[in-house]
Amino acid sequence: MNGAESLVHSLLASGVDTCFANPGTSEMHFVAALDRIPGMRCVLGLFEGVVTGAADGYGRVTGKPAATLLHCGPGLGNGLQNLHNAKRAISPIVNCVGDQATYHRPLDAPLTADTEGYARGVSHWVRTAGKASEVGADAAVAVQQALVSPGQIATLILPSDTCWDAGGVVAAPLPVPAAPTAAPHAIEVAAKLLRDGRRCAIVLGNGAMRAGPLADAARIAAATGAKLIAQGANGRVERGRGRHGVARIPYPVDQAVAAMAEFEVVILVGVTKPVIFFAYPNKPGSPVPPGAQLHAMSRPEHDQAQALAALAAALGNPPAVAPESSPVPEPATGAVNSDAFAQSLAALLPEQAIVADESITFGRSMYGRTQAAAPHDWMSVGGGAIGGGMPLATGAAVGAPGRRVVNLQADGSAMYTIQSLWTQAREKLDVTTIIFSNRKYQILLGELANVGANPGRVALDMMDLGNPDLDFVKMANGMGVEGAKADTMERFNDLFAASLTRKGPFLIELAT
Amino acid sequence: MNGAESLVHSLLASGVDTCFANPGTSEMHFVAALDRIPGMRCVLGLFEGVVTGAADGYGRVTGKPAATLLHCGPGLGNGLQNLHNAKRAISPIVNCVGDQATYHRPLDAPLTADTEGYARGVSHWVRTAGKASEVGADAAVAVQQALVSPGQIATLILPSDTCWDAGGVVAAPLPVPAAPTAAPHAIEVAAKLLRDGRRCAIVLGNGAMRAGPLADAARIAAATGAKLIAQGANGRVERGRGRHGVARIPYPVDQAVAAMAEFEVVILVGVTKPVIFFAYPNKPGSPVPPGAQLHAMSRPEHDQAQALAALAAALGNPPAVAPESSPVPEPATGAVNSDAFAQSLAALLPEQAIVADESITFGRSMYGRTQAAAPHDWMSVGGGAIGGGMPLATGAAVGAPGRRVVNLQADGSAMYTIQSLWTQAREKLDVTTIIFSNRKYQILLGELANVGANPGRVALDMMDLGNPDLDFVKMANGMGVEGAKADTMERFNDLFAASLTRKGPFLIELAT
Repeated sequence: MNGAESLVHSLLASGVDTCFANPGTSEMHFVAALDRIPGMRCVLGLFEGVVTGAADGYGRVTGKPAATLLHCGPGLGNGLQNLHNAKRAISPIVNCVGDQATYHRPLDAPLTADTEGYARGVSHWVRTAGKASEVGADAAVAVQQALVSPGQIATLILPSDTCWDAGGVVAAPLPVPAAPTAAPHAIEVAAKLLRDGRRCAIVLGNGAMRAGPLADAARIAAATGAKLIAQGANGRVERGRGRHGVARIPYPVDQAVAAMAEFEVVILVGVTKPVIFFAYPNKPGSPVPPGAQLHAMSRPEHDQAQALAALAAALGNPPAVAPESSPVPEPATGAVNSDAFAQSLAALLPEQAIVADESITFGRSMYGRTQAAAPHDWMSVGGGAIGGGMPLATGAAVGAPGRRVVNLQADGSAMYTIQSLWTQAREKLDVTTIIFSNRKYQILLGELANVGANPGRVALDMMDLGNPDLDFVKMANGMGVEGAKADTMERFNDLFAASLTRKGPFLIELAT
Repeated sequence: MNGAESLVHSLLASGVDTCFANPGTSEMHFVAALDRIPGMRCVLGLFEGVVTGAADGYGRVTGKPAATLLHCGPGLGNGLQNLHNAKRAISPIVNCVGDQATYHRPLDAPLTADTEGYARGVSHWVRTAGKASEVGADAAVAVQQALVSPGQIATLILPSDTCWDAGGVVAAPLPVPAAPTAAPHAIEVAAKLLRDGRRCAIVLGNGAMRAGPLADAARIAAATGAKLIAQGANGRVERGRGRHGVARIPYPVDQAVAAMAEFEVVILVGVTKPVIFFAYPNKPGSPVPPGAQLHAMSRPEHDQAQALAALAAALGNPPAVAPESSPVPEPATGAVNSDAFAQSLAALLPEQAIVADESITFGRSMYGRTQAAAPHDWMSVGGGAIGGGMPLATGAAVGAPGRRVVNLQADGSAMYTIQSLWTQAREKLDVTTIIFSNRKYQILLGELANVGANPGRVALDMMDLGNPDLDFVKMANGMGVEGAKADTMERFNDLFAASLTRKGPFLIELAT
């Protein structure tokens, strides 16, 4: 058995059975091993940002890591932005990167790069395999590391000789430690703060955004008068009708500050202190009022369900409360705008849909209104690195067959990882992509105003995607995905409903 | 004057007047400064790999750096592969990366990343600006560093407050040291080796691949019986009819070894010791025979024209020799294949064309045959990182208006930076892109055979781009570029000739 075969066997033994790949020369033994060993689903991406973003989406919906397969340092480089997003969304990924043979690396062939250096910033754990006999064990550790709570990026770099040399040994799975529980003292302090009568916010993060913990958070809030608020971007939120919805801290700095201005006490559950996305001259860096008392009840790696249940117990187990119910809207008609779109989405989103949201400016009102939709999962781009949406949708569809994935996608950010569409066509993934085509970097126009600039020709040109117009339907067709354009809500409603009934992907370019 | 304004003024004062940009929120003051200060041409890319690869192409054809404008660590991450290529091709680039404000960075907002860490592996020089009053001076140093022979990547990271704070100071250009000259002793040793009667190769690298130094190399070879050979990938080669052509060390290991097997002495001019691109089991890592005597006459940073002139002088100034002349072929007719294509290209390539070559497997016979074409420049992807070709073509066209750029582009690698087409359309760049559509990762099938594997279904699937077929004409149309398909040489000849007469880009998808 060579090292590559021990790698594949060991990944399978540890429960990793899906590999998002963009292989190159130095990974040919890995590919050959995948050929010989059944059980690993291989999903090809035409660009590494698709591969890593898909692994992120897969990890979010399955709770377990996919493997990636990337080609040398530059291939990893192309995947960095979505590894960054995955790290911020606490997704588990076993990130496999082929590299020059151990003895070839010192010769500094053209593709030789600082692969470990590239990996460090986006990985919780990095190891370069040293020899074939250790690759199996390295793989088992990588899976274990990826599964460490709350989910980690484990990068395993595989020099080609460690894959082709004989002597591979299959490694048994390693035990994964359970998520740690929040300190009992931290729970007690939170309970005390909730009882002391000051205006209190409970800020919820990734792991708390599941239906169960949200129900506990809701009864705690109802019993104490505290308000619930979620961090801006979360890996996966279980929401929709019959579940407890929680508003998010808004992205724009002034709105974020206003949303938290009233609070004297801020309790953090599974999150670090909220911060503003970017600094602006003479604006605060955090929406938390300077005088507020901050209490970190649980950190991101803790078991948030346990923490919230313990907090409820410490408060005398207040009774469950029913989720707010808003009527299911009718699909909107007439002109396209953000509110109308949100209304149609709330009306038409199918049960157990998975939303991959990179809608940026157009989507800011969408989240609140879609709480009235059928129960669904909502995924945001974790780290704000552009180009996360389409790969996320792709990987989620691989990880959750039978569920419709709806990708809410701004036009500018779609162009970073547009190659995702080809993988969706190839794998016949049930993804409906909705491109919000405003033909500009709308967010930057807002940001330019934020910094007090009055845009002139050069600035406007640099935010204008309309010269020439991007035609997403043509691009999708070029990658094997059918699509159509809509410029009224009626047309959108029809196209969207039709897309839900078909097998495989569809793209709607919505003029906004 | 704020820091951003001092940055733009200082770049202009140092001769940097072109900026390839994909800006984000943290770069809004830079954008606003570009608005207010005339003189900088801003070229927008929809993806950072386009931006950095275009800066590489621009640097190769102009000999001077463009600035980039990238957004935070993840934006830099997306640009790494083509910075890697640029570094290997010794292109000068002033790589500007906006980042979180100095005081916001510790708050670890979602997009915060290890920007310096990402930059180090691809940069000769990295600096993070500390305050607005120093940004101008930082920019001047960055330009100076980019111009250090033989061409460097200088990365200047700009926290947003260093751009918006007042107190900017415009810096004067700094002196750029001339390229050092090779040691006289090293020239003498080379002359002695060339006279001693052993079979000798002179290996030429980037800086020696210009018409002048090649003429000197040719007369040295004629006088001494040495053979000239070039490294595999060069930043820019001046070649074609009336110039001295030099064969390159082949990419496939066996061919590379065979090409150098006869040599007892190997003299290096502007290159390090040739290496094989990847290691293979039981194959050598370098094509240089183990027993050969190696002499590094000049290193990449030396003045290669001076070194070869000095060597000629040390050999008694042998007479100039006429370049080999081969008859100008007629365009090929009939079925499409690599030789037929090369024949048509040699026939039809216009005078002073610039070829951006990422043709991979289909192109391997192309280089030799196009020596018979009209005088032109030939650019290869410097570091072997896939996705270099289309951005290189884009940047070269910006840097050399009036010259036709011909991008020889494999289909698989086209998909890494396909967004280049939009920039070509927007800027009306005279680029003819020829996509060699074989609908597979042909190189990997060869590499899989090289490692002795017999590909099965999984492996074949991972090298197959034909399910679904990519339609490059549709994709080009979707980005505002006209195109057409060809599946005979006659059709190709017509389309290619027509493309040369139009303003702006055109794409030909050639079924191979």
